[in-house]
Amino acid sequence: MAAYAKRSHQELESLKKALEEEYAAHKAKGLSLNMARGKPGADQLDLSMPMLDLVNGTSDCRSADGTDLRNYGVLDGIAECKKLMAVLLDDEPENVIVFGNSSLTIMYDSIMRFMTFGTLGSTPWGKFENVKFLCPVPGYDRHFAITERFGIEMINVPLNDDGPDMDIVEKLVANDAQIKGIWCVPKYANPCGITYSDEVVRRLASMKCAAEDFRIMWDNAYCVHHLNANVAEQDQLLDIAIACREAGTEDRYFKFASTSKITFPGAGVAAMAASPANVKEVKDHITIQMIGHDKLNQLRHVLFLKDAKGIAEHMQKHAAIIAPKFELVLKMLEEGLGDTGCASWTKPRGGYFISLNGPDGTAKRIVSLAKEAGVTMTGAGATYPYKKDPNDANIRIAPTLPPLAELEQAMEVFVCCVKLASVEALLAK
Amino acid sequence: MAAYAKRSHQELESLKKALEEEYAAHKAKGLSLNMARGKPGADQLDLSMPMLDLVNGTSDCRSADGTDLRNYGVLDGIAECKKLMAVLLDDEPENVIVFGNSSLTIMYDSIMRFMTFGTLGSTPWGKFENVKFLCPVPGYDRHFAITERFGIEMINVPLNDDGPDMDIVEKLVANDAQIKGIWCVPKYANPCGITYSDEVVRRLASMKCAAEDFRIMWDNAYCVHHLNANVAEQDQLLDIAIACREAGTEDRYFKFASTSKITFPGAGVAAMAASPANVKEVKDHITIQMIGHDKLNQLRHVLFLKDAKGIAEHMQKHAAIIAPKFELVLKMLEEGLGDTGCASWTKPRGGYFISLNGPDGTAKRIVSLAKEAGVTMTGAGATYPYKKDPNDANIRIAPTLPPLAELEQAMEVFVCCVKLASVEALLAK
Repeated sequence: MAAYAKRSHQELESLKKALEEEYAAHKAKGLSLNMARGKPGADQLDLSMPMLDLVNGTSDCRSADGTDLRNYGVLDGIAECKKLMAVLLDDEPENVIVFGNSSLTIMYDSIMRFMTFGTLGSTPWGKFENVKFLCPVPGYDRHFAITERFGIEMINVPLNDDGPDMDIVEKLVANDAQIKGIWCVPKYANPCGITYSDEVVRRLASMKCAAEDFRIMWDNAYCVHHLNANVAEQDQLLDIAIACREAGTEDRYFKFASTSKITFPGAGVAAMAASPANVKEVKDHITIQMIGHDKLNQLRHVLFLKDAKGIAEHMQKHAAIIAPKFELVLKMLEEGLGDTGCASWTKPRGGYFISLNGPDGTAKRIVSLAKEAGVTMTGAGATYPYKKDPNDANIRIAPTLPPLAELEQAMEVFVCCVKLASVEALLAK
Repeated sequence: MAAYAKRSHQELESLKKALEEEYAAHKAKGLSLNMARGKPGADQLDLSMPMLDLVNGTSDCRSADGTDLRNYGVLDGIAECKKLMAVLLDDEPENVIVFGNSSLTIMYDSIMRFMTFGTLGSTPWGKFENVKFLCPVPGYDRHFAITERFGIEMINVPLNDDGPDMDIVEKLVANDAQIKGIWCVPKYANPCGITYSDEVVRRLASMKCAAEDFRIMWDNAYCVHHLNANVAEQDQLLDIAIACREAGTEDRYFKFASTSKITFPGAGVAAMAASPANVKEVKDHITIQMIGHDKLNQLRHVLFLKDAKGIAEHMQKHAAIIAPKFELVLKMLEEGLGDTGCASWTKPRGGYFISLNGPDGTAKRIVSLAKEAGVTMTGAGATYPYKKDPNDANIRIAPTLPPLAELEQAMEVFVCCVKLASVEALLAK
């Protein structure tokens, strides 16, 4: 079968007619399916149910040092939980601060503090006429929403297979002191699934920044979220802390992680890791903001996940559930679109997303067609700052939430929509 | 026995010698006791242990509307928990937003938003050269710490037996547009234990404010924290929301409450209530900051506390434990200091504190003497903005944490310290 672009006008017209019929048939089914957000499925959540029995009405509720975890206090998290979260953050427990159930909140609050108070003696960012942030694209919509809300100007930087395009990044940060930071999902990136190479991590750590208080927001959301239990099939990420220490820029990074996609998105534990100076400053701020986060939930997580081995074993159970979903999506994309030449997509080894690029100018149309047929995708443009995909081409596919049978139905619809929108675009040329 | 002030120099000298001997004897015991913070005792925390069994490994974990509470979402709290927290907030569920485990964080974030974004179209407070807040004194140190951190100038206002001195408040807010708000603990106030009268609540609601975006931070931390189960012995507070609606100032107040001193300080649920316009604005902000707070903990609280009746019954169990502690402290103050004329103190019907005023210029000395003898009190001055008690007279007594026997020991030391410092002060005149 010839690629769409090589077909005649007449062939495309009859193809369009056939696709419209197929689309109408899908629509007639009255589906209501959702591939919009990176949410674990109910069967994944069931994996962590035993955790809820570990702190119960007969529990001692004390930490190893004797602290009554039911009461006030312990600003930065119980020692046991700092140790656990240090595994996810690839750091030492003393560099970890444990927070509530949301790493997004930690990031929002971090940006808020930079804007309001500055950091390590620097001018509060809010005092400047203009502050800018680098945003590797496509990227995570909720990151972009934070910087947008604080009035920070966002600059798109292409995300390559090994991370952000560092030639562009280095040039930008070297010459513009208004650029104060960069959003990074360094491992199994949202939505592309790529992992930053060691070289990219080192260049981020060592690049010359015009802004002395340039900060890397290192959102390692998918740190242990491999699709394959075989270590040879897992991506490895160089620790940004090590790279920064080697480069003499140890205050440049803030690492974030959570158990949202390990235990429960609605009742997990989130944490940050940073340099000693940054940890000290953050603690000095949060001691005004709160007395201590939920320590019983910290204890639950410690007793359930235990350590690196416990986490890895638990994540294999997740992989056993979601890897078949990724395989199904990739198979259906290949079978449905492989020879059409109208889309390319990523084949991640971990994380929660597949990123698809259709023909320029079709993403909104594809998502809208799917929506009309009862399949909700992440909004077109959501993977770009200001929700503006300059090419209107990128679509994020989130395969984890629907059960396999529903996912198959949803993907049938989606593939049909990609084809239809692609043919429409070719005919409109 | 004559009041200290009426005694001769010689009498005071010999009294001082006797007190110094008593003090030395206390010190020799090597005590380590703490009356510094309003923390529930372990026996109070035990009351809520059954809550930990209500959401367990076999639970359905769904809300009434079928939402899987383990997963992402539900920005403003599950319907059942909004209803529960509405009891504490004396409001309708639709005006409630449920947050994490800390009302302090809600308050900090509220001030942060006012500073950064303004409210309901007003200029962000951070854009002004100077912003001021009224602080009824003595008051809650953590409130003052928030406004201090954001660079807001704090103005002391005397707290009378029926609330802040409204003649002073009305005059200040009418003439100074830089005054943007007031901190209030309207019921069983920290540390005085008084409850605002209906008249004070109405005057706060209806007073003319030069700042259109003047805000009342209504921290109803002790809303159901009575010391007596008999309703006739409980304080009643007029709802600020009703008063503001009547006065046509419905956007003026933000109410805060939590279950920190109902279930677990370390693992409770906190919430705010506000006008529809304010609720809408806050939701629009927090949707950038987070996806949803811990809904399993919300469910736990709903299943455990149930409703207003459930809360009241549970609070009676707390009262049964802490009322004897308040009685002991009051008895020992009366017996030890009653006829000395050198101190006055409050006799609250609820809350967590007793507020004591010693002779001017002695509070720091008293607290320091107690500390040296192994009894930690709240720092002198802590009940005032900038930790500056202009009279150096006020001390907050927190009787709830120590078991009764320890409390008795601690109070023996404390009473001795008050006497000794008072005599010292008289002799130095």
